[in-house]
Amino acid sequence: MTSSNNEKNFGIGLAGCGTVGTGVIRALQRNGELIRQRTGGQMTMAVKRVLVRDATKSRDEAVDATMLTTDWRAVVEDPAVHLVVELIGGTGLAFEIVARALELGKPVITGNKALLAERGVELFALSKKHQVPIHFEAAVAGGIPIIKTVQEAFVGNRMTALCGIINGTSNYILQRMSEARLDFQTALGEAQALGYAEADPTLDVNGWDAAHKAILLATLAYGFPISPADVHVVGIEQVKPIDIDFAKQLGYVVKLLAVIREHADGAVELRLQPSFVSKTHILASVNGVFNAVAVHGDGVGDALFYGRGAGQDPTASAVVADLVEAARSLCHAQGHRGFLPWAAQGRLLPIEDTKTAYYVRFDVTDRPGVIAEIARVLADHRIGISGTHSPVNPENPDAAFVDMVFLLHSCPFGLLQTALKEIFALDCVNSEPVVFRIEQL
Amino acid sequence: MTSSNNEKNFGIGLAGCGTVGTGVIRALQRNGELIRQRTGGQMTMAVKRVLVRDATKSRDEAVDATMLTTDWRAVVEDPAVHLVVELIGGTGLAFEIVARALELGKPVITGNKALLAERGVELFALSKKHQVPIHFEAAVAGGIPIIKTVQEAFVGNRMTALCGIINGTSNYILQRMSEARLDFQTALGEAQALGYAEADPTLDVNGWDAAHKAILLATLAYGFPISPADVHVVGIEQVKPIDIDFAKQLGYVVKLLAVIREHADGAVELRLQPSFVSKTHILASVNGVFNAVAVHGDGVGDALFYGRGAGQDPTASAVVADLVEAARSLCHAQGHRGFLPWAAQGRLLPIEDTKTAYYVRFDVTDRPGVIAEIARVLADHRIGISGTHSPVNPENPDAAFVDMVFLLHSCPFGLLQTALKEIFALDCVNSEPVVFRIEQL
Repeated sequence: MTSSNNEKNFGIGLAGCGTVGTGVIRALQRNGELIRQRTGGQMTMAVKRVLVRDATKSRDEAVDATMLTTDWRAVVEDPAVHLVVELIGGTGLAFEIVARALELGKPVITGNKALLAERGVELFALSKKHQVPIHFEAAVAGGIPIIKTVQEAFVGNRMTALCGIINGTSNYILQRMSEARLDFQTALGEAQALGYAEADPTLDVNGWDAAHKAILLATLAYGFPISPADVHVVGIEQVKPIDIDFAKQLGYVVKLLAVIREHADGAVELRLQPSFVSKTHILASVNGVFNAVAVHGDGVGDALFYGRGAGQDPTASAVVADLVEAARSLCHAQGHRGFLPWAAQGRLLPIEDTKTAYYVRFDVTDRPGVIAEIARVLADHRIGISGTHSPVNPENPDAAFVDMVFLLHSCPFGLLQTALKEIFALDCVNSEPVVFRIEQL
Repeated sequence: MTSSNNEKNFGIGLAGCGTVGTGVIRALQRNGELIRQRTGGQMTMAVKRVLVRDATKSRDEAVDATMLTTDWRAVVEDPAVHLVVELIGGTGLAFEIVARALELGKPVITGNKALLAERGVELFALSKKHQVPIHFEAAVAGGIPIIKTVQEAFVGNRMTALCGIINGTSNYILQRMSEARLDFQTALGEAQALGYAEADPTLDVNGWDAAHKAILLATLAYGFPISPADVHVVGIEQVKPIDIDFAKQLGYVVKLLAVIREHADGAVELRLQPSFVSKTHILASVNGVFNAVAVHGDGVGDALFYGRGAGQDPTASAVVADLVEAARSLCHAQGHRGFLPWAAQGRLLPIEDTKTAYYVRFDVTDRPGVIAEIARVLADHRIGISGTHSPVNPENPDAAFVDMVFLLHSCPFGLLQTALKEIFALDCVNSEPVVFRIEQL
């Protein structure tokens, strides 16, 4: 940093100038003076270099064209740059940028959940080696300071559960499917038209964007590295309007839910899937592109955090908070902190051992004895039934094929899978059963 | 601190060993090893001295009797004590303890909102002078990290509003009055019997506990000192079952609400009173001893934080988080941070200029012309009426005195007061009108 009159000036190198990068530039222009005052009147920050793919493209007027470069080393290695913000995404060049910044002793702020979830162990080892922090509040739930909460505010708590809605795009799609009875493709198209979904929405709808975030939260809470390959992830592409209708009739809402739980024996349950949430639970009211995370700690008990999970300004707000903290760490020669796993390994609960109640829908041939046959298989596996429903199709009351819903008591997922395989083999069952978990939050 | 093998051991001096103090001792015993791991395996903390009023009293088994003393200097000045936790309450001895600790270079953790709201300016000047931090997450909303959020996570935001339920005792009392139709005294007695209200519940029910917290939040958000004398505070002692009934009929819930808002011209609105909150708003669902704060920032947009506002473990969790941060600051020679007002003065919006819609209940003599007389006065002051209600008492339909409710459009509170004074002077009005604000959240 450069100092004069006790005032410290921090230069920022920005890698990536899309929606969030532009938001960071705008936020620092809008509230720079406020930030200076709040931090004791002695800290100023300004963007000095900006890495872009195309320096000739027209940009927001807040972006000073003379700062633009297509050479990443010119950004990271510029001596006027003290703090590096990585917002280009991906796990290739982004990795190189972060690694080089750490090597040069420059704190890194990133919003790249895929990078940290896939290659966090390597990067945080570099962070420790060079004693330079990586900050990543922007990587999970944009405007909600959930990283800071887990890492700092709840540092004295065993975290028994973290459950939440951490992908706004899929939350919006599910909401539209529910309220306007749209099918998945139509709702997705609408989200894209409104700018809530990327041109390539794959990671949002297949659950992996949320899974990357959940991996970060679980690693912070439990301190061991988690391989994405070990995480059970189901997206929302297979959710059908009929399931949403049934959920409604039964008093539930369908949400793409991240569930992280520590069991008494130390095993950590971590899964991501569309689930039924009781419509009286606060998470059921989280609509649109909002995110929410419910946390249970052994000290704090139940807590819930709600806010905008994405978007230019909320995410930029998280980046700016991290910039201030990183700048403070330079003032105080503070080093690495936080995320590095403290245990070589931990135990993820196998998905087969996770237990919830379930909603299962079968596509069956409508003839006497169907319920008895399915119920027989469930009974053989000692899986309890709490209800069955078979809606009559008013347009075709004598249809040969009908949807038959079973509500099942809590049992291990592996046991359910075994039973469902046997049921699918029955003559009367025409396609793979559809399963939703009924969450007890 | 004492160091060996890179491990730093921090000694804690605890002033006060009531509910929260005992909770801190228990939390450090329960999760000390977890905290050590999370902070990089090199930080341990242990309570060394405990200030009590009566060292002979029987205490929780977690409390080591050999640490107890009735001499506050023996706690603060002990060289084995590096961090001082102040939990005795009040603004006298507590001030001396905090001031002495700062003078000795020992970071202070306090949960004493009255001390900070009444004498914070003096204490934070000492904090700056000695470059020693005061941490106070436990002072506002126990298990909710709202101080950290305002001070750090939202440091890049202009905070346009902070509204919340930040006194669990009064929230519990109002809830019981509503659901069991209890009067105030009965509900208070119940809260006391359950341990939710202190033997002396004055500060909880007169609104001042919440007002002290709101002053801290507003000072953090806007950076100027606020004198408690300038804050408009109304408690819940005057809330009547009939008001709660009317609120219900009209689609509202009565909540003791802290409202902090920055107006476009920079004036800050800060008030505390029982208000009507739409039952569809998330704050209406905050029940029992839970707290919640809704924040609006110019970057993050809407966010909400929900959790336990008090109690042994949630408050101890906040103290422990502050202890970790204070210990880190000692490792990194970090100094004063945060709360010190950055502006010599700011402008509090006079309560007369605050605007909301209102519910006003008049105790009137039942004769023709009453509504016309009251409406005439309101019209003279250009205050709009959105509805009037006069419930019939089924046990006495011809009663001479009745309650007459007026719902009024948004207008300045000062204008309403003037009108109400004139109305109270009317022959037909028998007692001071009862006013609730109808909040637009």
